[in-house]
Amino acid sequence: MSEPPHDSDDAFGAFEPALFTDLYQLTMLQSYEAEGMAARAVFSLFVRTLPAERNYLIAAGLEDALAYLEVLRFGPTARGYLRMMPQFSNEFVDALADFRFTGDVYAVPEGTPVFAGEPLLEIEAPIGEAQVVETYLLNQVTFQTLIASKGARSVLAARGKPVIDFGTRRAHGTDAALKAARALHIVGFNATSNVEAGRRYGLAMTGTMAHSYVQAHASEREAFAAFAAQYRGTVLLVDTYDTEQGVRRAVALATGPDAGVDLSAVRLDSGDLDALSRRARAILDEAGLPDVGIVVSGGLDEHAIAALEHAGAPISAYAVGTRVSTSADAPTLDSVYKLTAYAGVGRVKLSPNKLTMPGRKQVFRRFVDGVADRDVIAREGEAIDGEPLLRSVMRDGRRLPDETRSLAAIREYASDQLRRLPPALRSIERVEPYAVTVGAGLVADSAEAEEAASRAGLAD
Amino acid sequence: MSEPPHDSDDAFGAFEPALFTDLYQLTMLQSYEAEGMAARAVFSLFVRTLPAERNYLIAAGLEDALAYLEVLRFGPTARGYLRMMPQFSNEFVDALADFRFTGDVYAVPEGTPVFAGEPLLEIEAPIGEAQVVETYLLNQVTFQTLIASKGARSVLAARGKPVIDFGTRRAHGTDAALKAARALHIVGFNATSNVEAGRRYGLAMTGTMAHSYVQAHASEREAFAAFAAQYRGTVLLVDTYDTEQGVRRAVALATGPDAGVDLSAVRLDSGDLDALSRRARAILDEAGLPDVGIVVSGGLDEHAIAALEHAGAPISAYAVGTRVSTSADAPTLDSVYKLTAYAGVGRVKLSPNKLTMPGRKQVFRRFVDGVADRDVIAREGEAIDGEPLLRSVMRDGRRLPDETRSLAAIREYASDQLRRLPPALRSIERVEPYAVTVGAGLVADSAEAEEAASRAGLAD
Repeated sequence: MSEPPHDSDDAFGAFEPALFTDLYQLTMLQSYEAEGMAARAVFSLFVRTLPAERNYLIAAGLEDALAYLEVLRFGPTARGYLRMMPQFSNEFVDALADFRFTGDVYAVPEGTPVFAGEPLLEIEAPIGEAQVVETYLLNQVTFQTLIASKGARSVLAARGKPVIDFGTRRAHGTDAALKAARALHIVGFNATSNVEAGRRYGLAMTGTMAHSYVQAHASEREAFAAFAAQYRGTVLLVDTYDTEQGVRRAVALATGPDAGVDLSAVRLDSGDLDALSRRARAILDEAGLPDVGIVVSGGLDEHAIAALEHAGAPISAYAVGTRVSTSADAPTLDSVYKLTAYAGVGRVKLSPNKLTMPGRKQVFRRFVDGVADRDVIAREGEAIDGEPLLRSVMRDGRRLPDETRSLAAIREYASDQLRRLPPALRSIERVEPYAVTVGAGLVADSAEAEEAASRAGLAD
Repeated sequence: MSEPPHDSDDAFGAFEPALFTDLYQLTMLQSYEAEGMAARAVFSLFVRTLPAERNYLIAAGLEDALAYLEVLRFGPTARGYLRMMPQFSNEFVDALADFRFTGDVYAVPEGTPVFAGEPLLEIEAPIGEAQVVETYLLNQVTFQTLIASKGARSVLAARGKPVIDFGTRRAHGTDAALKAARALHIVGFNATSNVEAGRRYGLAMTGTMAHSYVQAHASEREAFAAFAAQYRGTVLLVDTYDTEQGVRRAVALATGPDAGVDLSAVRLDSGDLDALSRRARAILDEAGLPDVGIVVSGGLDEHAIAALEHAGAPISAYAVGTRVSTSADAPTLDSVYKLTAYAGVGRVKLSPNKLTMPGRKQVFRRFVDGVADRDVIAREGEAIDGEPLLRSVMRDGRRLPDETRSLAAIREYASDQLRRLPPALRSIERVEPYAVTVGAGLVADSAEAEEAASRAGLAD
């Protein structure tokens, strides 16, 4: 295929949503239509196994999933391109003009802790519609859940101190940076440095200054004075040359003849943050500036934060970046989108040693004294004790209005749900897995579906 | 700040390029303008240290970097938002309407192998302009270089067999999936499953079928027959129930009474790919189908590919996904964007044990018998033997026309450059680092700049 001219719109993230899919989704869609296969299918999106470094995941990405399902269209650009591809007939491409996602969606709310095997999302729709959306749904839900799960650990490690997202520059592309800012907000981050994320999601934004700013001035003192003159509540970066001297210079500015300088914090971005934060604290306190905080950054993650907290470092806020925005210790989730029923019959793939769970499901979370004790994955409709996690969020392709939750509400819900997890599980260390069992009805359904799959495998 | 209503355009990746930045870039820009600091600065984008798992990096992302620099504007939406922020004055926001990047850019071409400390990109522009573009440049160049570097290893491990990008579903968001497809094309991948990447970049696309398609049919045979009837050169996924039986069914279809079935390959997505590919090959050969290939997938990376190649598994093509599109073994690069000169004077940050290299630079690569032997990072203009890697690619904010290289040319260049690396370095195992030294002139400049930085640090 010939190379198109550079399109500068494309350079900034915009794309044809309907074409953001694996080719086989479209060839399968055409095949289903040619075969007249239009019965309803159920697909389940879940994570097969948790990364070794995670005791739980925090569901995220539902808002983007639903927005996509609601507005997915094959417009003129998409159809024009598909028409040129040898795989697709003109009839098929013409009919795509009327394509709509008309199905139902059940999902755990964003911010819910989830475990291996538990559906984050179930889609019930005519099979072609349910299939063709797989790629985008997996792409968004996997990444956003990955980052929410990683970020929650930093928030817990910081023990209530503010945690800030500085991850944009090394996130995997623009979409990752923006979605990470949102996912981190859900799990309790206090601000992001990304202005577009602030605009789009209404997030608090924060920022300090770069080493380059200090370097470009004739002296650190001049740089500090110029910046502080511009901004109230300024945060001065004190480690460009010598950290202790930098702190003393910040102090001189806030207490000296330059009245009106409103210093809110100093930032340490390198070196031994424990030792340097203590020296900075001592210098600030001696100068009568107990309310001037100490923000630290530079390669932090939940383990570094926990070590600093354990040591009792006098740090006011943690700015985390790369390691959280790429989930560096576990940069992917073993997420899948599996057909579990077609035309009312449970379907499974035969995979030795893998749990096969046909049909629509519900997850029941049992609490003991307000603390989550175990989950049961059950057949939808099975009578099981506990709080059901999956909710109806879309019917006939339209979002249900009571599910339009604000980001603030999602964040509060996530915080509440995290508090209800067993305390051991909230550790950043690996602990005994949370108990997840399978309901008796679903076990029976599994046996039946596996038998049917064996027959289908043998049939000639 | 209040939460905006959901904007469905935003859900599909589009964003305000000027706001895709860390807040401090904009506060520094305002401060530079208020201070009247408009002299030219040099910033250098480089990777400080290579991940332990990489012997070299492959530069990528320049095309997007240049497109951004050329079209960067603060339009009405961006200005309207900034005007509401307490940090920014109306005068500053009004003046942003005229903002243009007017600087010069020097860069190594996409597809060039690079090493720690070597500039991928140097920006020379009035300091505010050069500073404010940092976030986007780092975001794009870091990720695309990360993926090109990871992907090159799979291509080398596959020893000339086709390698295919199936990574979209677990890439970190939409931008990552699209840019990864392009970066992997540069380093020799043969096709992608992502249709939008195919459209945007003119890439070959490929796809097979999903397990769900097989499961939805009454039998595997029916599923295969229906799919093969639709598509020429079809690839049948044979491991939904029993792999060997699946291969036999594919054979029956291609050799049986259903004339006209054009089977190009079978795909194995699970199990012992070495053993299963041998059995599949034997079955296909016995049936007189030596030209029907075997495509394998499922959690592959360069190490899995190398093991299969080493074992002599009769595999025709490798489809790789998650592990490559997230660079799972090294999901980030230690990339930085450092001020190295302002107003004609070299500037460095004092960092114990870190190499500080002021000013504009050039990298010279010396070849012995056509094989790269060592690189010298030198002061720009320093007379050093070897091929210079950095080229002038943008002048006064406009791309230089002879640098408009097609993607096909970049791919060929990358292949050629990889061939010219020392054979040991192309191993997927860790080897002795490639020799990179610093030219005498730059060493002298460094000493001088560090002395100046010490003075700046001491000045009161």
